[in-house]
Amino acid sequence: MHPRLLERLHAAVGDAGLVLDDEARAPYETDWLRKFTGRSSVVVRPADTAQTAEVMRICHETHTPVVTQGGNTGMSGGATPDGSGAQVVLSTVRMKAIRSVDPLNNTLTAEAGVLLAHIQAAAQAVDRFFPLSLGSEGSCTIGGNLATNAGGIAVLRYGNARELALGLEVVLPDGRVWHGLRALRKDNTGYDLRDLFIGSEGTLGIITAAVLKLHARPVARATAWVGAASIDALVRLLAQLRAACGERLVAFEMLSAESLELILAHVADSRAPLASAHAFHALIELADTQAQGLAELLEGGLGEALEQSLVDDVAVSVSGAQTQAFWKIREGISQAQMRAGKAVKHDIALPISALAAFVHRADAALREAMPGVRIIDFGHLGDGNLHYNVLMPLDTAPEAMATATARLNRIVHDLVAEAGGSISAEHGVGQLRRDELRHYKSEVEFDLMMRIKQSLDPNQIMNPGKLI
Amino acid sequence: MHPRLLERLHAAVGDAGLVLDDEARAPYETDWLRKFTGRSSVVVRPADTAQTAEVMRICHETHTPVVTQGGNTGMSGGATPDGSGAQVVLSTVRMKAIRSVDPLNNTLTAEAGVLLAHIQAAAQAVDRFFPLSLGSEGSCTIGGNLATNAGGIAVLRYGNARELALGLEVVLPDGRVWHGLRALRKDNTGYDLRDLFIGSEGTLGIITAAVLKLHARPVARATAWVGAASIDALVRLLAQLRAACGERLVAFEMLSAESLELILAHVADSRAPLASAHAFHALIELADTQAQGLAELLEGGLGEALEQSLVDDVAVSVSGAQTQAFWKIREGISQAQMRAGKAVKHDIALPISALAAFVHRADAALREAMPGVRIIDFGHLGDGNLHYNVLMPLDTAPEAMATATARLNRIVHDLVAEAGGSISAEHGVGQLRRDELRHYKSEVEFDLMMRIKQSLDPNQIMNPGKLI
Repeated sequence: MHPRLLERLHAAVGDAGLVLDDEARAPYETDWLRKFTGRSSVVVRPADTAQTAEVMRICHETHTPVVTQGGNTGMSGGATPDGSGAQVVLSTVRMKAIRSVDPLNNTLTAEAGVLLAHIQAAAQAVDRFFPLSLGSEGSCTIGGNLATNAGGIAVLRYGNARELALGLEVVLPDGRVWHGLRALRKDNTGYDLRDLFIGSEGTLGIITAAVLKLHARPVARATAWVGAASIDALVRLLAQLRAACGERLVAFEMLSAESLELILAHVADSRAPLASAHAFHALIELADTQAQGLAELLEGGLGEALEQSLVDDVAVSVSGAQTQAFWKIREGISQAQMRAGKAVKHDIALPISALAAFVHRADAALREAMPGVRIIDFGHLGDGNLHYNVLMPLDTAPEAMATATARLNRIVHDLVAEAGGSISAEHGVGQLRRDELRHYKSEVEFDLMMRIKQSLDPNQIMNPGKLI
Repeated sequence: MHPRLLERLHAAVGDAGLVLDDEARAPYETDWLRKFTGRSSVVVRPADTAQTAEVMRICHETHTPVVTQGGNTGMSGGATPDGSGAQVVLSTVRMKAIRSVDPLNNTLTAEAGVLLAHIQAAAQAVDRFFPLSLGSEGSCTIGGNLATNAGGIAVLRYGNARELALGLEVVLPDGRVWHGLRALRKDNTGYDLRDLFIGSEGTLGIITAAVLKLHARPVARATAWVGAASIDALVRLLAQLRAACGERLVAFEMLSAESLELILAHVADSRAPLASAHAFHALIELADTQAQGLAELLEGGLGEALEQSLVDDVAVSVSGAQTQAFWKIREGISQAQMRAGKAVKHDIALPISALAAFVHRADAALREAMPGVRIIDFGHLGDGNLHYNVLMPLDTAPEAMATATARLNRIVHDLVAEAGGSISAEHGVGQLRRDELRHYKSEVEFDLMMRIKQSLDPNQIMNPGKLI
């Protein structure tokens, strides 16, 4: 790094904002799954929007590439620098003020570095609810959630991160600031810049703050575990429960028998929720601002499903402890996979009506291509989002993993594309799926994306090598 | 128009797709409020996406400007050609197929020219609900709804048109087609092109089809009319009802005393819902997929509000006829204004917590600027969206109207901007508010918009003179 550049960055962010030491920089140069490691020229940690803007003015003038990083909990290497040592990592973690909470308007304005869990708590403190929820909520930042349009376990009811943001403040590639922190439910004054930055994975600008939507706080929950013979049956149950329960239905999570077995084998103190064996399982939850009748609604809907043989067994939770136990099973899947092997992960989405046929075809194709393959199929059925993974032995060599990944990706993603699905549902594209994206995007769509990229980041300094 | 151009357009759309006759063209050249009249060189009515693409290829090659028009029910002249006679009007009304309905996925795929009311009916036919609802639903098209990101009376619960679309098919300015008809709840594969086209008012491309979200069909409604002393009290009531009722709260519409008087004076068979006089009125509605307890929930919430003196009188509807009568009053405001005078209309949105203070300031400023001014203040309180209008006498001369409009706009919009609001909430910018938009948009935001416009429509042929 040119000493003059370092000097200017130092002047912009001060001692507290500069991480130069190799050892101190290391955590910023590897993703938490340890799949991607790169090298940064320097890590800058601006304290506020003005410092972020000054850093970007400097990088703009000097054509210095910038990788923005939040809590560094991404699954796709989107916030990890490349190996050149030329990229500046810009960490948002010091921008952690909650600027305002407005319960009458049901909004909260937070800076990019605020932890998702802190936003949830700030909403609860004014008797409101911020619904975005994911495994990493204690360490991921809202800036990263928005930059990747994070999904999680409440999308069925509340939408993705995109649907939870009303306004943004963004530092542009040339250091100008777009002040788009609107707290409005209706605003038709030109092109939707907000949604262009959301999900752009740091390739168009740096989100420094956001106005978030708050919701009414649910005071009651009703949770059940069901066993069924097929995905098709679960999809029909989902439709029936939606019709009966409307927006009370907040979770409809699916696990295949093999996924459940893996969890029971590898997660301490986990017990099978049902005594009997089933090909597929679902964790179903209702929530409401009124407690009355909620449990009965769930029991009624599942009782009907039993009569129709849509489900074969049902356990309705009768205590907070039992509900926690159900969720612990669902959330144990990541740990179980890590302990049991090396996973080739697919983060796919399909029309819900196409899920069952897709899984039949993909299972058959994988079994033919790789006899004895271990398919770990689970996900957010209510969103059409499957984490349709393949588990390889723990001792699989890196080259063998790479070969298997390429082969499995092509089989699975070809079938996803045929069914009108998405090869990147909620974990982002980053480095991990960038080549796959190019393979499957239409020429027209890719051209539109490139035009936008070039118009907003003409020097191509924003997170090069990611997404686009 | 050059004969060769006409020949090519004729080859593209055939006899049935070409409107040449002056008289036949006239309805396409004036908006329904008769505020804007222009001249078209020709009106083309392509039968499908392929014909639309061919028309755009021709217009691209010949640099011919194109004005896209749906049901021609817009309020801002966004679909009316200019006076040059050089613009082609492209009407989407012949593209009216509902391509598919998928109740398991809760989606419906419709072409741009389908009437909103037909989409509502198609959803209902499969026991689902398409919530977008506005006064013109019997004659507006879904393409126009999406191009303007229409709002309406269900935004509080279901969001704007933007929130109801999952995927789009768009003919680009050069005649290429972006096939983005995804029916997915989660899809993070690059920049959000969908939301860029939604709300862009025909200035970036032509939406030819869309995948729309369907919702669970509510089977029960509970409706009430309340009188209150202040907007502040209504805002607090809104917050309380949201906390108690969650997503059951589907409408919270506000009318000032003067708005109500105007309706009672000018709409046949309308009767005051409350015996007593109140400064502000609200029409409140809950809806649910379950009937049980719904009326009690509304009554309980309003009973509490009476005890707290948030409201001074309440009438809970006891019959379908009474509910209809309540809605007839609310919906009578447009007609009442037309009969009573000439309205200077403001379609503004504010943070809900800022509404009361805004109205106090704006009322005072208008009364000072124009003693005796008739302020007709009503709107979608639950969305922070006011139609804060000023009624001028019926015999006001056009020049006097123009002068008053400019003066009133500046007073109202300055206060809106100060309060962090929007000067264009749900009716679009079109021709009507284009200059206002330029006045209030930040230089940075306008520059971002222009970059996008130039990158997607470099020849500037898409709806010139509108929005941007």
